[in-house]
Amino acid sequence: MNVLRKSIKVLTRARCFGTSGVCHGYNNLTKVAQENGVRKITLANPKKRNALSYQMEEDLIEDISLNDDDPSLRCIVIAAEGPVFSAGHDLKELCQEGMPARVFQLASGLMAAIRNSPVPIISAVNGLAAAAGCQLVAASDIVVCTEKSRFSTPGGNFGLFCSTPGVALVRVLPRQFANWMLYTGEPISAQQALQLGLVAKVCDENNLEEEVEKIVTAIKHKPRDVVALGKSFLNQQVEMDVVTAYRLGEKVMLDNLEYANAQEGLISFAEKRKPKWN
Amino acid sequence: MNVLRKSIKVLTRARCFGTSGVCHGYNNLTKVAQENGVRKITLANPKKRNALSYQMEEDLIEDISLNDDDPSLRCIVIAAEGPVFSAGHDLKELCQEGMPARVFQLASGLMAAIRNSPVPIISAVNGLAAAAGCQLVAASDIVVCTEKSRFSTPGGNFGLFCSTPGVALVRVLPRQFANWMLYTGEPISAQQALQLGLVAKVCDENNLEEEVEKIVTAIKHKPRDVVALGKSFLNQQVEMDVVTAYRLGEKVMLDNLEYANAQEGLISFAEKRKPKWN
Amino acid sequence: MNVLRKSIKVLTRARCFGTSGVCHGYNNLTKVAQENGVRKITLANPKKRNALSYQMEEDLIEDISLNDDDPSLRCIVIAAEGPVFSAGHDLKELCQEGMPARVFQLASGLMAAIRNSPVPIISAVNGLAAAAGCQLVAASDIVVCTEKSRFSTPGGNFGLFCSTPGVALVRVLPRQFANWMLYTGEPISAQQALQLGLVAKVCDENNLEEEVEKIVTAIKHKPRDVVALGKSFLNQQVEMDVVTAYRLGEKVMLDNLEYANAQEGLISFAEKRKPKWN
Repeated sequence: MNVLRKSIKVLTRARCFGTSGVCHGYNNLTKVAQENGVRKITLANPKKRNALSYQMEEDLIEDISLNDDDPSLRCIVIAAEGPVFSAGHDLKELCQEGMPARVFQLASGLMAAIRNSPVPIISAVNGLAAAAGCQLVAASDIVVCTEKSRFSTPGGNFGLFCSTPGVALVRVLPRQFANWMLYTGEPISAQQALQLGLVAKVCDENNLEEEVEKIVTAIKHKPRDVVALGKSFLNQQVEMDVVTAYRLGEKVMLDNLEYANAQEGLISFAEKRKPKWN
Repeated sequence: MNVLRKSIKVLTRARCFGTSGVCHGYNNLTKVAQENGVRKITLANPKKRNALSYQMEEDLIEDISLNDDDPSLRCIVIAAEGPVFSAGHDLKELCQEGMPARVFQLASGLMAAIRNSPVPIISAVNGLAAAAGCQLVAASDIVVCTEKSRFSTPGGNFGLFCSTPGVALVRVLPRQFANWMLYTGEPISAQQALQLGLVAKVCDENNLEEEVEKIVTAIKHKPRDVVALGKSFLNQQVEMDVVTAYRLGEKVMLDNLEYANAQEGLISFAEKRKPKWN
Repeated sequence: MNVLRKSIKVLTRARCFGTSGVCHGYNNLTKVAQENGVRKITLANPKKRNALSYQMEEDLIEDISLNDDDPSLRCIVIAAEGPVFSAGHDLKELCQEGMPARVFQLASGLMAAIRNSPVPIISAVNGLAAAAGCQLVAASDIVVCTEKSRFSTPGGNFGLFCSTPGVALVRVLPRQFANWMLYTGEPISAQQALQLGLVAKVCDENNLEEEVEKIVTAIKHKPRDVVALGKSFLNQQVEMDVVTAYRLGEKVMLDNLEYANAQEGLISFAEKRKPKWN
């Protein structure tokens, strides 16, 4: 990555966030807007079916990570322009000398950026999420989708098995449904995704923003540092045996109680008034 | 814990079980009755929404563990008085100097008591199970609930993320639904809980006892030592890689066959008669 | 295992596959036919409710593993004659001196054969799959079943807890539903199995072959070596922490790209033509 160009991009974006709240660099494949605590990242390359190309991955990582210590940032929503949320990696790019290694490595970087973000990341899906696009959805903290949305991992049809998407799928779906998706390449519907737990909510296209807003509002009701602590522990403990997880959990709960916001939360509860978060 | 007082409590309770079959010490927040092989523990502090206070945790651990080698004990059912199954920890208690560490540690002890009990533990939920109350439900071996029951982890709203409830949730629910519960704090319905696998059965309030009884009867149909061996292995193997789990499983199956009850089971099957368990 | 007899069996079968495509040795409890890339293994001992006896296990392992490097083999379907898919181990056999250890060890061998097969293994269930029979289904890569099918783990009723079936169940079903099945011994219905993700498709008895054929066709649409690589990685990564899994995934994706079939897949995609798999 060109460090200088990167620095300029970051500065540009930082400035954007500071003024109009909207930013779309002319080199970027995403649009980013931050308002009322919500950063909305829109995959904005519909002609290429929002392919997770190297540049798209780079943009997404930057969009997710930039100024993520901004106290006003409470939640990130990933949406997309056009009928395809994301069709996965750019197959043409994977034919270019030296690109595959960079693309796959950055894809893992994108997964890490989602896990490491201090705020919950919601995917708002309205259309097809395929291959690495399905991986992006499955790796999100919460997914809302419209009735017409579908999820598939058809890589094997192009001779490239959806191996990394499988990492995300087996961690959020019943194992044999993940298998079915990976071996057949066939899509599951929005309703199946809801039934199996891949998405938390299915709605009409007209209500997508409203349903996302409900979740965002619920998150904003909680203190930022407390949600950040919770998310970090949640991702840690899921890899542990249950006894170790509870032991660490005790410590995390005690640490949480030391937060000024926890003290305020408990006192306001006792005083039967609304808490004032720090 | 005051060892002397504890011993007296244990003796008192032990005596209770030996006579009327019902016990409710005047210091206790639970009611306990044992009949026909079933120990029914009732959270009996509805005015405090059956908060999992230090004393409630202590009572539950004692109720679960006491005389658990009693051969007539076949199953434990946890129920609750009032419209709230349990609202989680007592937030006021968490404001008291030195209490949080004790409360959280004992909560892990309660989880261990459930796992280590030689008999299956069924939660019979009729109302809201929230925060550590939801954790208690999710950590039970089997859950039955009424249509009006709901399950939530709203701790973040009070500045204290439901971190330890999350340990239980991600192990029984699809990951993104657990996330949704933890980040939004919103409840899931009984029907959602059934669909997602958190509860095994949803019924009308009038049928709750009957549905629990069906499960209890099925458990009592099996020898106690065999169920205890199975429960212990089930909890062990879930933490193992699949090859190790099957290898240990072979050994456990062979051990199981050495049990007199297994011999009786196989012989009675061959002789086409009902087995007489030891 | 008698090595000589084994060798003869293998040769016999190999010859069978080479000519009529159907093989049923007079000593065998299975029927095997291979046609159009699909090896269909039929449990053919309905009088014994297709018990997973030592011989049945031996036959299944051989049927799955034999000539599994045959490039024309693309998929294995396990079906059964009679109203019971499989009732689990033969309880009478478990009473014979020395047999249990051999039966249980071979059962783990059968599980390994399924995991290690380079092709996806589909169970086509039309009836009851119980105990080790349920384990066989749960350990399959994909399951299709008819409306009348049921799945249960009732071993405890005979004094022998379904410990090894539990290994498979907790890895494919929500934990508390697996518990419910194991502690009660009661069956779940085809619709429950679908809802919980144990099976990918439920259909009428008349459509079972058709539904299996859809899956088979989808698998055959992909190159054999690519599916084999994907299956192997899928089974490996599910045991890893997520960071390690993605790191290995990157490597597997790069390896996959080196396959001639991947090159052909990407080129044919760019040239907007059907790929010609090697």
